[in-house]
Amino acid sequence: MSFVSLNIESPTDAPVKLTRRALAKQRTRERVLSAARRLFTERGYEGATIRDIAQAAGMSTGAVFASFSDKSELFDEILTADYEVIYAQMKQAGVNAATVEEGVIGMFAVAYGFHVEQLPLLQASIAVSWTRSETAERRNRGHLKHIFALLNGVLTRGVERGELKTDADVKLLAEIIWDVYVANYRRAIFDAWSVEALLSRLSDQLKVILAGARA
Amino acid sequence: MSFVSLNIESPTDAPVKLTRRALAKQRTRERVLSAARRLFTERGYEGATIRDIAQAAGMSTGAVFASFSDKSELFDEILTADYEVIYAQMKQAGVNAATVEEGVIGMFAVAYGFHVEQLPLLQASIAVSWTRSETAERRNRGHLKHIFALLNGVLTRGVERGELKTDADVKLLAEIIWDVYVANYRRAIFDAWSVEALLSRLSDQLKVILAGARA
Repeated sequence: MSFVSLNIESPTDAPVKLTRRALAKQRTRERVLSAARRLFTERGYEGATIRDIAQAAGMSTGAVFASFSDKSELFDEILTADYEVIYAQMKQAGVNAATVEEGVIGMFAVAYGFHVEQLPLLQASIAVSWTRSETAERRNRGHLKHIFALLNGVLTRGVERGELKTDADVKLLAEIIWDVYVANYRRAIFDAWSVEALLSRLSDQLKVILAGARA
Repeated sequence: MSFVSLNIESPTDAPVKLTRRALAKQRTRERVLSAARRLFTERGYEGATIRDIAQAAGMSTGAVFASFSDKSELFDEILTADYEVIYAQMKQAGVNAATVEEGVIGMFAVAYGFHVEQLPLLQASIAVSWTRSETAERRNRGHLKHIFALLNGVLTRGVERGELKTDADVKLLAEIIWDVYVANYRRAIFDAWSVEALLSRLSDQLKVILAGARA
């Protein structure tokens, strides 16, 4: 009914027009993101310009800027989408684990498995993370909070079930584990290590890091 | 005797000429390195081109390429010179220490003190380290070998004096310590941490990392 009345009282296709516009905008964003992902992967962050990305997406640079304020926002959007893809799986691995080691290894097995398949993008994202603006750093730490919450959860459950000491510094342990987890990607990049090799190393590192915290 | 005969049989000023040429070449290298250090610091690695560097050094790009095969060699040369500046001090701090913690903290106090004074160059060097060629990575690992030897020395002396267990995995411990040492620079870059704050954090991290290795 309302559809019919609208059809009578306003320009006949107004609601349809709005939806079409929103859809078109969404499609533009997706085309830009897809072209950007490919070019960042092929050329790295510095090597891919907005002009290149626009051209690869078959649109003007103005059309790209209508969706994204700058290259850094475009890049972060790709990484955020990737976080969302792996977050649920990482959570499941962490929550279902019977031991701290099983939880940490399970979580990072998901992350290594995902990123090793797209190393050039990962390399660009780590490289950028060292030279970005403070604003971009804050935004990224916001994203990482969710991952750190999972890691803290795995460690806290270890304390609760008596696997780790009650006075274990969960936050510090999580940060050390994160630092070695990230550093291990160098082995994948420059030494062609497999996910299994990375996890075996992480397991050795975890034994060292957790040794003093075990109850 | 041979010197005299050379002086007679060849153009009298040949050896002097060679020395002058070598000196001029050395001066050119130094001018290029000095301009490059300034521009990499101001603009980052990607932001400074060989053309910019040549211009800042007051010479042609051809003259720059006569001394350095490419930008990456030029950049590595600056970092190598920096390693050499701090290596002796790091060694002294490591060798003279009474405990493992004192040795590690002493070594990295030198490194933090040095790099915190030139963070933009450090940021560029870490960023580049994630996207460089395998050849550049091998070359850099060669340079790091000396630093790792110092760190391994500090830990090995800890084992020898009975501070650490005889079966402590010195190599793995050194690598974990290195990973957190590097990761801590994020705090200096994005949170303006002082050298003292970085060392206090490293000290907390060391307690965790060494806990399981203590005799």
